[in-house]
Amino acid sequence: MQTYADMTKEQLQEELTKVRQIYKEYQDKGLKLDMSRGKPSSGQLDLGMGLLNAVDAESLMQAENGLDTRNYGGLDGIPEAKRLMAGIMEVRPEQVIVCGNSSLNTMYDMVARGMLLGYLGQTPWCKLDKVKFLCPVPGYDRHFAVTEHFGVEMINVPMTEEGPDMDMVEKLVAEDDAIKGIWCVPKYSNPQGVIYSDETVRRMAALKPAAKDFRIFWDNAYAVHHLYGAEKGKILNILDECEKAGNPDMVFEFCSTSKISFAGGGIAAIAASEANLADIKKSLTIQTIGFDKVNQLRHVRFFKDADGIAKHMEKHAEFLRPRFELVLETLESQLSGLGAGSWIKPMGGYFITYETNEGCAKRVVALAKEAGVVLTPAGAPFPYGKDPKDSVIRIAPSYPTMEDLKAAAEIFCVCVKVATLEKMLEA
Amino acid sequence: MQTYADMTKEQLQEELTKVRQIYKEYQDKGLKLDMSRGKPSSGQLDLGMGLLNAVDAESLMQAENGLDTRNYGGLDGIPEAKRLMAGIMEVRPEQVIVCGNSSLNTMYDMVARGMLLGYLGQTPWCKLDKVKFLCPVPGYDRHFAVTEHFGVEMINVPMTEEGPDMDMVEKLVAEDDAIKGIWCVPKYSNPQGVIYSDETVRRMAALKPAAKDFRIFWDNAYAVHHLYGAEKGKILNILDECEKAGNPDMVFEFCSTSKISFAGGGIAAIAASEANLADIKKSLTIQTIGFDKVNQLRHVRFFKDADGIAKHMEKHAEFLRPRFELVLETLESQLSGLGAGSWIKPMGGYFITYETNEGCAKRVVALAKEAGVVLTPAGAPFPYGKDPKDSVIRIAPSYPTMEDLKAAAEIFCVCVKVATLEKMLEA
Repeated sequence: MQTYADMTKEQLQEELTKVRQIYKEYQDKGLKLDMSRGKPSSGQLDLGMGLLNAVDAESLMQAENGLDTRNYGGLDGIPEAKRLMAGIMEVRPEQVIVCGNSSLNTMYDMVARGMLLGYLGQTPWCKLDKVKFLCPVPGYDRHFAVTEHFGVEMINVPMTEEGPDMDMVEKLVAEDDAIKGIWCVPKYSNPQGVIYSDETVRRMAALKPAAKDFRIFWDNAYAVHHLYGAEKGKILNILDECEKAGNPDMVFEFCSTSKISFAGGGIAAIAASEANLADIKKSLTIQTIGFDKVNQLRHVRFFKDADGIAKHMEKHAEFLRPRFELVLETLESQLSGLGAGSWIKPMGGYFITYETNEGCAKRVVALAKEAGVVLTPAGAPFPYGKDPKDSVIRIAPSYPTMEDLKAAAEIFCVCVKVATLEKMLEA
Repeated sequence: MQTYADMTKEQLQEELTKVRQIYKEYQDKGLKLDMSRGKPSSGQLDLGMGLLNAVDAESLMQAENGLDTRNYGGLDGIPEAKRLMAGIMEVRPEQVIVCGNSSLNTMYDMVARGMLLGYLGQTPWCKLDKVKFLCPVPGYDRHFAVTEHFGVEMINVPMTEEGPDMDMVEKLVAEDDAIKGIWCVPKYSNPQGVIYSDETVRRMAALKPAAKDFRIFWDNAYAVHHLYGAEKGKILNILDECEKAGNPDMVFEFCSTSKISFAGGGIAAIAASEANLADIKKSLTIQTIGFDKVNQLRHVRFFKDADGIAKHMEKHAEFLRPRFELVLETLESQLSGLGAGSWIKPMGGYFITYETNEGCAKRVVALAKEAGVVLTPAGAPFPYGKDPKDSVIRIAPSYPTMEDLKAAAEIFCVCVKVATLEKMLEA
């Protein structure tokens, strides 16, 4: 394929006319397709239906410590659920509090605690003039929405193929004690699918922040969400690394079963140091008498243990892999070598990120919309929804049928071509 | 029975010697009994086991609006769950957001929103020098714990047999714009079992608070928890009354199924005005993608509707009524006419409150403990755990077996006698 950059103005114009014609043909089909939603498809959800039979009217409802899961008590979760969630995060059960149905809510609560109560006796952030968070970009829009909601100033840190730019992170946190946190999705990052390298994790754990109450918000959302096996997705254990580096209290790790069992019908968890857990529990015991232990028991009875989870996730992978590959093959065949942008092949997670040439992402999303394909709004993976280069587009292949996905991916490629050519010709 | 007040010092001393002997006999039995916990017994929880079969691996998991309850979405709850929870609170479904597993957590979140974000555009409370809440006493210790946790100053308001002392409430909220809320359990109040009179509800709804962001926290925890039928527990609809009084936004109402289905395994809800709901949703959409809709569906499929709930609650009443009556009969036979305190016969809820003579409650609780009967700590139903008269003791009859409850109630009466006589003799 000839790179656009090598074409003359006339050739580009000719090419644009051609792809516009193809675009128009797609448009005329009046399709309604959606690649915006990072949610499991009903086929994946069907995989988990056995969960609903895992406890029934005949079940013994006692946890292994004798606690009746149907009654009050057990603030930090039943022991077997702690083990299950510890298995997902590869931490020790005693480092875990099992929470409600949403890790996002758990993260929101943790930021709210920082704001209102302060961590480990530090000043609540709402009493300070300025609070800042580092935001590796592109990242997860709902993370950024939480900090924006609470008036936290967000600072972009570029992602590399190894994780956040650690030179920049180290410098910023050492200089500015208003920086209280960093949002991380360390494995199969949302949206790029980046796996933090061992060096990145070690440097993260060894940060020397000016703020004593600086915390790494380690959202291990895709801990077991492999497409090509667990080996490809290995990351270092951040809790261990923080401990080794003399920063045991500097991290909160989060996970949930939302994309393992049911989205919103699962269980979430937080892992942290002994001191942090004690601090959290002091506030948690005011907030609730306890989370839903029946659902905790249900998950343990269904999945049994980390092996059970791994086997279940293989079924998800069988479902998702062809979808990812379909999109990637379409990108490869349609856009490779054109000089119209780039992408990384993710080894897991829920997204593919397409990076257009500068200034093209919004136009691609708009074109796709007019051709019946809904994409995540351009800019969404950035704080305040502002992509400084207007180039990142998040593609979510999980939800559509294979047929729809094929059409959507093809239309996407045409939109990229149109937008890229338009941009080059306008220069 | 001769009133203690009519006895001579010698007679009192003689009586004390006698009851101390009885107390000692109980003590020697080495019993281990517990009347402290306001939680359902396993017999009650067994009533709800059918809930676990209400959705299973064969079920259709779509809500009536087509939403797949296993997937993300549906921030404010599935329509049929809104109807179910509206039925419990006797409000309209469109006034309801169905929440997670805990109404306490929902209340905590609402106070946290007041602190961090402010209601309907008002200044967040964390930016103010002083925030105060009115606390009808005795009341629910976990309410007071939430406001204490956030550094809110709590002001005691005495309860009458019709609800909080409304003269005092009206005066205080009109004078002081630092007063931002009042905790209410309007039906079968925790711990006294008081039912707010129509006049109380109307005056509450017609308050003219100095603070624009003053809110009534209307914890309708025992909305359907009748011992002698629904008729005995009628209260006016606070949302309607607030609307009529021109204060539509002044109230948040809460409820849950924790003592209907499973404690902690149920669903909670908040009801409020249109403006408040919109305000809450603006923040809720940042906090979570949605609550557990599978559990919402499970509850709807099991209970069907308000009638189904009412029938189920009759079974709970059959279970609880003999327990309440056993305690009340014991109080009646052992303490009536003695001048050693008083109590109200509750028509529903989870507690009986015994009011000792001034300065005796702590001593009764300590004596009971030494005789093997755990009671809720004296003072617990008051802000900061301080009962100014040291006279209120909360009795929870739901959890023990009838046999244990009988022994515990008898020991309780002996402890009351000992403490009362000691106090009179020391004067």
